[in-house]
Amino acid sequence: RGRPTITSGDGRFRASLGGQVQWDVGGALQDSPGFGGNPAARLDSFGQNLRRARLFFSLGYDDFTLNLTPDFGGSPDGTPTLYEANFNWSPVKPLALTLGYYKPYYGLADSMSSNDFLMLERPGIIEIARGIAAGDSRASIGGRWAAERWFAAAYLTGDSYGSNSTQATSGQTGGVARLAGRPYADADTDVHLGVTGSYAFDLRRQADGQSLRLRDRPEWRIDQTRLIDTGALAADSAYTWGPEFGLRWRNFMLQGEYVRIGVNQSQASGVPRPDLGFEGGYVEGSWVITGEPRRYSTASGAFGRPSPARPFDFAGGGWGAWEAMARYSVVDLNDHATRGRAQAATGGVFGGRQEVVGMGLSWYPNNFLRFMLNWDIVNVDRLNAAGTTQIGKRFHTLALRTQFAF
Amino acid sequence: RGRPTITSGDGRFRASLGGQVQWDVGGALQDSPGFGGNPAARLDSFGQNLRRARLFFSLGYDDFTLNLTPDFGGSPDGTPTLYEANFNWSPVKPLALTLGYYKPYYGLADSMSSNDFLMLERPGIIEIARGIAAGDSRASIGGRWAAERWFAAAYLTGDSYGSNSTQATSGQTGGVARLAGRPYADADTDVHLGVTGSYAFDLRRQADGQSLRLRDRPEWRIDQTRLIDTGALAADSAYTWGPEFGLRWRNFMLQGEYVRIGVNQSQASGVPRPDLGFEGGYVEGSWVITGEPRRYSTASGAFGRPSPARPFDFAGGGWGAWEAMARYSVVDLNDHATRGRAQAATGGVFGGRQEVVGMGLSWYPNNFLRFMLNWDIVNVDRLNAAGTTQIGKRFHTLALRTQFAF
Amino acid sequence: RGRPTITSGDGRFRASLGGQVQWDVGGALQDSPGFGGNPAARLDSFGQNLRRARLFFSLGYDDFTLNLTPDFGGSPDGTPTLYEANFNWSPVKPLALTLGYYKPYYGLADSMSSNDFLMLERPGIIEIARGIAAGDSRASIGGRWAAERWFAAAYLTGDSYGSNSTQATSGQTGGVARLAGRPYADADTDVHLGVTGSYAFDLRRQADGQSLRLRDRPEWRIDQTRLIDTGALAADSAYTWGPEFGLRWRNFMLQGEYVRIGVNQSQASGVPRPDLGFEGGYVEGSWVITGEPRRYSTASGAFGRPSPARPFDFAGGGWGAWEAMARYSVVDLNDHATRGRAQAATGGVFGGRQEVVGMGLSWYPNNFLRFMLNWDIVNVDRLNAAGTTQIGKRFHTLALRTQFAF
Repeated sequence: RGRPTITSGDGRFRASLGGQVQWDVGGALQDSPGFGGNPAARLDSFGQNLRRARLFFSLGYDDFTLNLTPDFGGSPDGTPTLYEANFNWSPVKPLALTLGYYKPYYGLADSMSSNDFLMLERPGIIEIARGIAAGDSRASIGGRWAAERWFAAAYLTGDSYGSNSTQATSGQTGGVARLAGRPYADADTDVHLGVTGSYAFDLRRQADGQSLRLRDRPEWRIDQTRLIDTGALAADSAYTWGPEFGLRWRNFMLQGEYVRIGVNQSQASGVPRPDLGFEGGYVEGSWVITGEPRRYSTASGAFGRPSPARPFDFAGGGWGAWEAMARYSVVDLNDHATRGRAQAATGGVFGGRQEVVGMGLSWYPNNFLRFMLNWDIVNVDRLNAAGTTQIGKRFHTLALRTQFAF
Repeated sequence: RGRPTITSGDGRFRASLGGQVQWDVGGALQDSPGFGGNPAARLDSFGQNLRRARLFFSLGYDDFTLNLTPDFGGSPDGTPTLYEANFNWSPVKPLALTLGYYKPYYGLADSMSSNDFLMLERPGIIEIARGIAAGDSRASIGGRWAAERWFAAAYLTGDSYGSNSTQATSGQTGGVARLAGRPYADADTDVHLGVTGSYAFDLRRQADGQSLRLRDRPEWRIDQTRLIDTGALAADSAYTWGPEFGLRWRNFMLQGEYVRIGVNQSQASGVPRPDLGFEGGYVEGSWVITGEPRRYSTASGAFGRPSPARPFDFAGGGWGAWEAMARYSVVDLNDHATRGRAQAATGGVFGGRQEVVGMGLSWYPNNFLRFMLNWDIVNVDRLNAAGTTQIGKRFHTLALRTQFAF
Repeated sequence: RGRPTITSGDGRFRASLGGQVQWDVGGALQDSPGFGGNPAARLDSFGQNLRRARLFFSLGYDDFTLNLTPDFGGSPDGTPTLYEANFNWSPVKPLALTLGYYKPYYGLADSMSSNDFLMLERPGIIEIARGIAAGDSRASIGGRWAAERWFAAAYLTGDSYGSNSTQATSGQTGGVARLAGRPYADADTDVHLGVTGSYAFDLRRQADGQSLRLRDRPEWRIDQTRLIDTGALAADSAYTWGPEFGLRWRNFMLQGEYVRIGVNQSQASGVPRPDLGFEGGYVEGSWVITGEPRRYSTASGAFGRPSPARPFDFAGGGWGAWEAMARYSVVDLNDHATRGRAQAATGGVFGGRQEVVGMGLSWYPNNFLRFMLNWDIVNVDRLNAAGTTQIGKRFHTLALRTQFAF
């Protein structure tokens, strides 16, 4: 993608630099009463955030490659961190073995590059599910086979970058796998089908035992409040699985996933600790108004963003590419809980149910720049731990993202 | 300035790397009694600090440019942060439109590059005033028109990088503008006149309301103690404005500014909350002993540092450029306060008055290196909140800065 | 070493990029009872850590060089920091004058590059001793003369990067020196002898006085617990000194050091505060099974890692270099303390005694990559502050390091 690269005389050594910057401006439109049963609690009505600001340093020697990617953005920005640090070996063409901190392939929305997203953030269920044994900067050992018509990836995974800043007596261990294919593909059409799953067979153990917390922000990060949240669940293990589908026809694209999460709560005498199940899914579509296709990437088993046929030129008359997007997304973090009965009585959890209906418009002046306007209608339905009070909220969010990636 | 740059074959894409490192060693010379009425309170009598350590990554495509600049120094050093992350579009030559986190143009001393400073730190009044709606890594949208004889810049501004780490219910919004010109300019002479201003029409609001805090260190950052400080003022809005002048004749330069700050305190029943006004200014001069001029930069509407006519060469005999500098700077953060009466009784504030008389010597071995010795006499006159006790202090500071910039 | 470099047309300006990434996976094998007299206290039985992830930016102009090296790894990882930021001037060939934050030359194991280590971590006594007035990112001014047969280095040193985040009333000041030589050297043989020392003549002073704390992890950093620890000693000054030896014969190498640390405790009326002495040492050896030598580096006065004669090639048949390593290391942080008597009664300290017997195996597929397996047997013998209870522990550690350096 046009990253500046230096190569040694004999061609064996190479170094390249890439970058990705996403800067968001926006706010929430909300009625007077706040959330969490607290009228004063308000989401940020106008703010800015540097969502991602990554510099990709890549060094290669023969078929070995090192990737080191600091990130100066975040949720919220202000604390530089690391997106990935990994070692790659590709002994045969479509096989890549990787070791270190990185994002193992998991599901369709997680495999898509964050430069190519239809909406600002990943669907809630994907963000929550990938956090269990996959996600950014996860300690992983595994590989990917990315052929023309099918894609397979499997990893053993551990803790994430920075998790050692609190002392564990044993780190998390898990596994992640993804299998996908294009049963039908021609110049105008791509049909994508797949299945993905993860299993944390041992959750991170600290002095006070093992636990897992599932939660997410409302697919928008000008404000960092998480409105759905299971709290820390004492648990031994957890798994996720789900099917994925995608369809492109010319400049139209549609994709979706369903994911189910299972949590095996730790047994304790005299306390109800049933197994818990959570679920969610999303469907999203894109129409590139100027006609460019969102081409399928065989390397990641996911769709890319459109490449403008006529890049924007103040003098010339090119206007770049324009795209309209929409999404419906739902997550349900309630389980084994009964309205009117406290969580402690059932061993279940009122994590809340979040529905997001979103619309968006993108402008791609050229292959490097993107402007993206997002409008979401969010409905959170959640009871407090006693099961008596509604602490959810209905509101709208608006955000404009400016993106430069190369 | 000789930054290493890679350009693509067709010349449309370019990437360049720049750097700036400033490392300070110094200490305070102080009499036995400490400040703040506490005899044990002492400024650091010998220490080091990495003031700035920036790597400038700049990527361009046609007339778009992305700047991403991490900073590994600080006040104090130890916490890597971000100096800027912004998107630029320059459709016509002297016009630059910019969006993202960066330092919007504000006043003369703030527009000068930190590589070119006459003294180690900006004058106190400038540091305080630019902190209200301008300053480093400020969320801004705006532009600059920088012609041969005049300069105009205006921005809408929001919060700064990292400010989302505490939750706001609405971010700050404001505006910054600067208008300057060179009514007279010939080979030997530059006369600079200008006016600048800023207005925070909505201060950052958190759960406990809106507030503003004005304070600064004694124009020296080996120690991080701020001796003048208004504390958090409950306020709705604030503004600043001031004139600027500059004069260069051959290798002599003189410049100065006056700034007035107005704070509109939030009204509360039964509590006096008058509008507050603070002010300050500075005059500083430079004599480049070896004769080189401090050339005027039309791009920033400010003076640059001298470029040595005969770079230092151990063998050859060149000794680089040498420069003597001096400054008088004053800030008054007292208002509506009466000696002997508590702040709460008047609604005013004993923020303190700080005077700094400074002298300096610089050696520029070549265009990249600079060594800078600074000696300041600081006098802080400040009463405690009760208005009864002097908590100010008189002392000297010494510091040597080593700088490499390209 | 093949770092990508850009040079200006006239050859006077140059910029280069280097990198070092070390990623560790491992765990502790330990019996049921925990350490510190606490059965629940356990070392991490399985975890990962990004030990080092450094990007070396180096800029040169004539005989001046600037080095700026962020580090995205750590102990533990998660908090980006700075490894060095320094200015170098080399007016005559083997002389290098350096100023800024960096690691001044101190002892044999500390002078060795962390890419070339025989075991994962430096010997405990070296880690502890270098922490007093030397170590990474130390404020230093000094120089090195590195000739073919002898090496001399001396520095004035101050605080380290990030130490200003707590306020000092005066920073540490000290000195570090190292003198070493190769009395005998031929193609097959290098004999290295040296002596090193440091003196912190003024320890960092904060509001509560001056203090020094000596401690270390068990030469393994999957878990960050320090099992030997003197606690904060109220002290005025401290020194270290020790001899070093090294011997290479063909592909065999043996090296070792002994270090003695002296701490001058601050006097206080009615409290015993004897001078304290601690000591330790190590011997370690390497056998490069495939025959390559660990060449001596005259620039650092230390041995390097082997350079594979036949780099690994999946197709060709080269298998890189293989090496077996072993170490015995001991540190004693007990002094002036008597079993059964509390520390306060004697003014001494039960810091603990740590012995580590380690074995390792390295694979170097090529000059950039290294895989390193380490197995340590650790025995910590330590009494609590009352002198009555054993709080030490015996355990094994295992770790695999993957390293990419260029």
